[in-house]
Amino acid sequence: MSKIVAVETTDVRFPTSVSLDGSDAMNPDPDYSAAYVRIVLDTGESGYGFVFTIGRGNDVQVAAVDALAPHLVGQDAEALLADMGATWSSLVNDSQLRWLGPEKGVMHMAIGAVVNALWDLKAKRAELPLWLLLARMTPEELVSLVDFRYLGNALTEAEALDVLRAAEPGRADREAALRATGYPAYTTTPGWLGYSDDKLARLCREAVEDGFPQIKLKVGADVEDDIRRLRIAREVCGPEYPIAIDANQRWEVPQAIAWITALAPYGPAWVEEPTSPDDILGHAEIAAAVAPIPIAGGEHAHSRVMFKQLLQARGIEVVQIDAVRVAGVNENIATLLLAAKFGARVCPHAGGVGLCEAVQHLSMFDFVAVSGTREGRMIEYVDHLHEHFVAPADVRGGTYRAPMTPGNGMEMRPGSIETYRWRGAHVYA
Amino acid sequence: MSKIVAVETTDVRFPTSVSLDGSDAMNPDPDYSAAYVRIVLDTGESGYGFVFTIGRGNDVQVAAVDALAPHLVGQDAEALLADMGATWSSLVNDSQLRWLGPEKGVMHMAIGAVVNALWDLKAKRAELPLWLLLARMTPEELVSLVDFRYLGNALTEAEALDVLRAAEPGRADREAALRATGYPAYTTTPGWLGYSDDKLARLCREAVEDGFPQIKLKVGADVEDDIRRLRIAREVCGPEYPIAIDANQRWEVPQAIAWITALAPYGPAWVEEPTSPDDILGHAEIAAAVAPIPIAGGEHAHSRVMFKQLLQARGIEVVQIDAVRVAGVNENIATLLLAAKFGARVCPHAGGVGLCEAVQHLSMFDFVAVSGTREGRMIEYVDHLHEHFVAPADVRGGTYRAPMTPGNGMEMRPGSIETYRWRGAHVYA
Repeated sequence: MSKIVAVETTDVRFPTSVSLDGSDAMNPDPDYSAAYVRIVLDTGESGYGFVFTIGRGNDVQVAAVDALAPHLVGQDAEALLADMGATWSSLVNDSQLRWLGPEKGVMHMAIGAVVNALWDLKAKRAELPLWLLLARMTPEELVSLVDFRYLGNALTEAEALDVLRAAEPGRADREAALRATGYPAYTTTPGWLGYSDDKLARLCREAVEDGFPQIKLKVGADVEDDIRRLRIAREVCGPEYPIAIDANQRWEVPQAIAWITALAPYGPAWVEEPTSPDDILGHAEIAAAVAPIPIAGGEHAHSRVMFKQLLQARGIEVVQIDAVRVAGVNENIATLLLAAKFGARVCPHAGGVGLCEAVQHLSMFDFVAVSGTREGRMIEYVDHLHEHFVAPADVRGGTYRAPMTPGNGMEMRPGSIETYRWRGAHVYA
Repeated sequence: MSKIVAVETTDVRFPTSVSLDGSDAMNPDPDYSAAYVRIVLDTGESGYGFVFTIGRGNDVQVAAVDALAPHLVGQDAEALLADMGATWSSLVNDSQLRWLGPEKGVMHMAIGAVVNALWDLKAKRAELPLWLLLARMTPEELVSLVDFRYLGNALTEAEALDVLRAAEPGRADREAALRATGYPAYTTTPGWLGYSDDKLARLCREAVEDGFPQIKLKVGADVEDDIRRLRIAREVCGPEYPIAIDANQRWEVPQAIAWITALAPYGPAWVEEPTSPDDILGHAEIAAAVAPIPIAGGEHAHSRVMFKQLLQARGIEVVQIDAVRVAGVNENIATLLLAAKFGARVCPHAGGVGLCEAVQHLSMFDFVAVSGTREGRMIEYVDHLHEHFVAPADVRGGTYRAPMTPGNGMEMRPGSIETYRWRGAHVYA
C-alpha cells in the first residue's frame, strides 16, 4: 500500500497577452495559465496534471481542484490506480459536486486534472509514456475505463469492444511505425489575428519549409481582413497546400454560412468552431450548408455527451479533442471510441500551455489501439511555452516524435513554476 | 454617483441530507446550500443574490463569485444599473473568464448571482418587486437586456420585439389579475424518493386538500418502486388529477422510452429530465417516442443556447427555467422569449433554498409582459427553508401570491446566515 499524502495546487500564469501570441476573434488577450496539480504519495512519487485557462479565473480553477483533495488524501494509491474506471466514476458521480456542472465547466475540468495526474502516476510506475501504457491495455481493460452512461443510443460497451478488438491485430506494427516516423503535426503559429501581414507571410513560408503538412489561420473578426490574410497565405503556400481556418465561435449560424461561402474560393481545409460550441443543431445546419467543406470542433465540447451529439447530427467531421477540457483520459477514450464508431477523424486541439505535451499521447494511443490509422489525422502544434515542461513535445519536420519519457507529459519544470507562480500581478513582466 | 464598495460572499449550507428532504435518483443526500452574495454601495444600500448548490463545492462557487469582485468594486452603481444589458455583457464576455465555461458551470452561475444581485438593487431603488419592475419596462428596454448572440437562427431581436409588443395590450389587466389571484403552484413535497409509502400517501392527500393543481413524484431508481408509488399517488389523488414525474437525468435514451412506457398507464402529466440535460437529440428522440406525454426539462440547461436547441428539436414541451443556473435575469428573459416564440409552456424549477422566492418573479413577469397567459403554466413549490428569507414565498391554496416586497426575493435573514454559515462541518446538526 502507498498512500496519497497531499494534493498540491499552484496558480501558474504566463504573460502571453503582451506579445499577442494566442490572440483570436474571441480571445484577444489571453494569458496562458495552468491550475497545476501534483498528487504526492508517501513513497515520494508524484503525479502531475493541470487545467489550462487563459488568465483571470485560474484561481477559481485551483479552488475546484482543492475541493477534490478530500476524495484523494489518505487513499491507497494502488487501489485507485488499479481500477481507474471506478476511480473516475467516484469523482464524476459525487452527486453534490456534480450539481456544479453537471459534467461541465470548472468542476468537471478540475476532475480532469486530478484524473490525468493519477494517470501520470500510473504511467510512471509502469515506466511507460501514457500512450504506450494505454496502447498495451487489453480491449476489456480499456472499456472498463469508460463510463457509457448517456452513450447508449450511439455506442454500447459491446460496440466499443468490437472497435478495440478490430484494432488488435497490427498494434505492434503501428507502435513500431509511430516510434520510427511519429505522428503528423499542423501549425497554428502563422495564424494569430494580432500579427501583421508581413509576419503572416513569413510564418506561412517557414511553416511550409519546416515540413508541416497543414497550417491554420484564425478568422472571424472581419471578413475583408480574412479574405486578404487567406489570400496571402494561399499565395505563399501554393494552391494545393491545406490551410484550415478557425472562427473561435465568433459567428451566428446564418452568418457562418455566408462568411464560409465568402472564404470558400480560398479552399479551407476545414472550418473550426464556426459558432457556439454548445450549438449542436447549429453546427449541423452549417455543415450541411457548406459541404463538402469540413466543419471541425470539440476543443470546448465539455463532455462525451456533446461529442456524441456532434457526431450523431453530422455537425463535425473533424473531432478536436482537448486533453484538459473534459474529465481526463477516461472521457477522452470515450470520445476516441465514438469517433471510431462514426468514422470521424480526430485532430486534437493543442497549443496553450502544455496541451501539445498532453494530447499527443491520446492521438498516438488512438493510432495504435483504436482507429488504427493516421490517415487525415494530425495534432495541432504551436511553438511556445514548451520550455517549461520536463519533457517538451518534440516536433520536427512537421511531425510529433513519439515521446518515450514515462508519464503523461504534463510535468512542469520546478523553476518555471516558481517564476510564473501567480502573485496577484505579472510581477515578472 | 454611488459606488460599489464591496462584494461580500458567504458559504451557507443547510443539513437537509439528515431528513432526506430533496432526495432523488441522482441526488440521494443533498445539503441545500447557497453561495450567497451581497453587493454593498457607499450609500448603505445592498443587493442580494446567490447560487444554489447541494453541498460540497459550495466553496468553489464562492471563489467564482469572488473572482468577479474586481469587475464591480469601485464601479458607479448608477451606470451599471442604467444599462443592465451592457453590464451583463461585460461580465459574460470577459474573454479570460469565459474560457472557464464557456457560458456554463461554476463561472456562469457566479455571473448569474452577481447579475441577480444588481437586479435586486435596481428593484429596491425603484421600490418595486422584480417582476413588476420588469413588467413595466418597454419592449425596447427589455430587448436591450438580452444578448441575442447564437440565437439568430431561432429568434431575432425584431421577433423578440414583436412578442413583447403583442403582449403590451392587457399588461395592466394581467398585473391586476396577478395581484388578485396569484400564479398557480404545483408541489413536489410528496414525491421525494426517500419517503415511505405511508408518508407518500399522506402528503399526496394533503397536497390535494391544500388546493395544489398538480403534484410531482421523483422516479428513476427502480421501475417496480415507481409503479407502486405512482399507483398509490393515483389512488389518493383520483384519476384526473395531474401527477408529473421527474427522473432527474437517470436514464439512457432507450431505457427512458421503455420506462416511460411502463409508467404511461398511470397518466403522467409530464416526464422531467429523462436523460442527460445536455442530450438535446436524446430528448427529441424520447419526446417523439412517448408522445403525447410531454417532456419537461431545463433546470440544468446551462444557457439560452441549450434552451434554443431543446425547443428547436422539440425535445421539451415544458420549459423549466431556474433562477440561478444561467447568468441571471437577463438570460432568463432570453429563454422566456424563446419559449413564447416556440409556443412552449414555462413551468419553472424551484425548491432547493430560495429558488421559489427567486423564480416566481420571472413567471409573473412572463405572464404580464411576455406570454400573456397562465394557461397550463405553474411554478414548482417545495415547502422547506422559506423561513430563512426576508420575504418568504407566500403560497396558499395552491397559488403563489404576487410578492410586493421590493427586490428579487433573494435576501436571506441575517440570523439564518450566521447560524448556517459553513464552518467546515455541520456543527449545528
